[in-house]
Amino acid sequence: MRFEVSELSSGEVYKLMCAMVVPRPIALVTSWSANGVLNAAPFSYFNVMGTDPPVVAIGIGNRSGGEAKDTARNITEQGEFVVNLVDEALGEAMNLCATDFPPEVSEVEALGLTLAPSAKILTPRLAEAPFAFECRYVQTVEIGRTRVMLGEVVVIWGRDALVDEARKYVHTEHAHLIGRMHGRGWYTRTRDLFELERVSFEAWKAGQPE
Amino acid sequence: MRFEVSELSSGEVYKLMCAMVVPRPIALVTSWSANGVLNAAPFSYFNVMGTDPPVVAIGIGNRSGGEAKDTARNITEQGEFVVNLVDEALGEAMNLCATDFPPEVSEVEALGLTLAPSAKILTPRLAEAPFAFECRYVQTVEIGRTRVMLGEVVVIWGRDALVDEARKYVHTEHAHLIGRMHGRGWYTRTRDLFELERVSFEAWKAGQPE
Repeated sequence: MRFEVSELSSGEVYKLMCAMVVPRPIALVTSWSANGVLNAAPFSYFNVMGTDPPVVAIGIGNRSGGEAKDTARNITEQGEFVVNLVDEALGEAMNLCATDFPPEVSEVEALGLTLAPSAKILTPRLAEAPFAFECRYVQTVEIGRTRVMLGEVVVIWGRDALVDEARKYVHTEHAHLIGRMHGRGWYTRTRDLFELERVSFEAWKAGQPE
Repeated sequence: MRFEVSELSSGEVYKLMCAMVVPRPIALVTSWSANGVLNAAPFSYFNVMGTDPPVVAIGIGNRSGGEAKDTARNITEQGEFVVNLVDEALGEAMNLCATDFPPEVSEVEALGLTLAPSAKILTPRLAEAPFAFECRYVQTVEIGRTRVMLGEVVVIWGRDALVDEARKYVHTEHAHLIGRMHGRGWYTRTRDLFELERVSFEAWKAGQPE
């Protein structure tokens, strides 16, 4: 079944795309507003885009009224932000951060989350997050009303119990991060794992019939 | 525990970031090479970035030798590509598409995958994919060796049994897409779902103690 985008409303495109591109990793972004309110908001149009240097991309839309979301404004004004990753324990608070808090209310304070200082930027991270990235804002690409914001990661934080410092090895299977799925509020756990073995071309060819 | 990126090798940054940003959605990208080989390669530095218009971002690195991967070259040369989403049944073939096939070998042909025509672009999609997006190439952002490629979705395909055409409703819970996890080959299923209810600010406030 096919849908030509030019024949769909933006609401219909949203419904289809968000339900088809899953599971999406979640960035709970902390950022300072110009008047000193610490904002926290979740985004699932988010991913790492490369690691040399490490760059994250976040798609940040507008509020229903048309003006940029607090996070987009804060990032461009302050030139920095923190990406906090979300595990099962942080899920409930992350979901409440998506609530329509007025701009003068800090979600972090209202929800009783704990701030921890960052090392190289002024924006604090969330102590509750298993992993966090201090990011410097790089640039925004606007395509119509779609806004892609890029940040370069300067410091990587990991909960002590989850990271082997010497080997730089992360025990992801114990982190229990959650992923965004479809609809207004569906998420997936990451406990149902399986492994696919990398096969070299030579090995694959050797296994083929003559 | 904190890691300053400037003190890490690019391999260490890769190890940490890929194990911390999970679960990642997977784009099995089909693209034509200039000499007519249909390429298929999986990318998990991928997500939708917005839906007005619908835009996808894909982080495409270089081969170990330093030259651009086939897919990056094909996309810029042809100006189009298809993002095929990956379910459990397609996982094994997707993994083999990551094998180091020589550029003159079509992964699609070698693995016995089925091509289906696209509606608005010349690049075919994979009949085995539950969902697929026909994309026109928009632009590339390069930050050091990190390459972010942006495409605008012009046609959305969904398997008949998974999409309600009139309501534009997708039965994501029956699609069984897989997500990329950590390490060389760990993936997650999306069967272990839970729902978080959206709460309005007013409702949240009403539930707080005076």
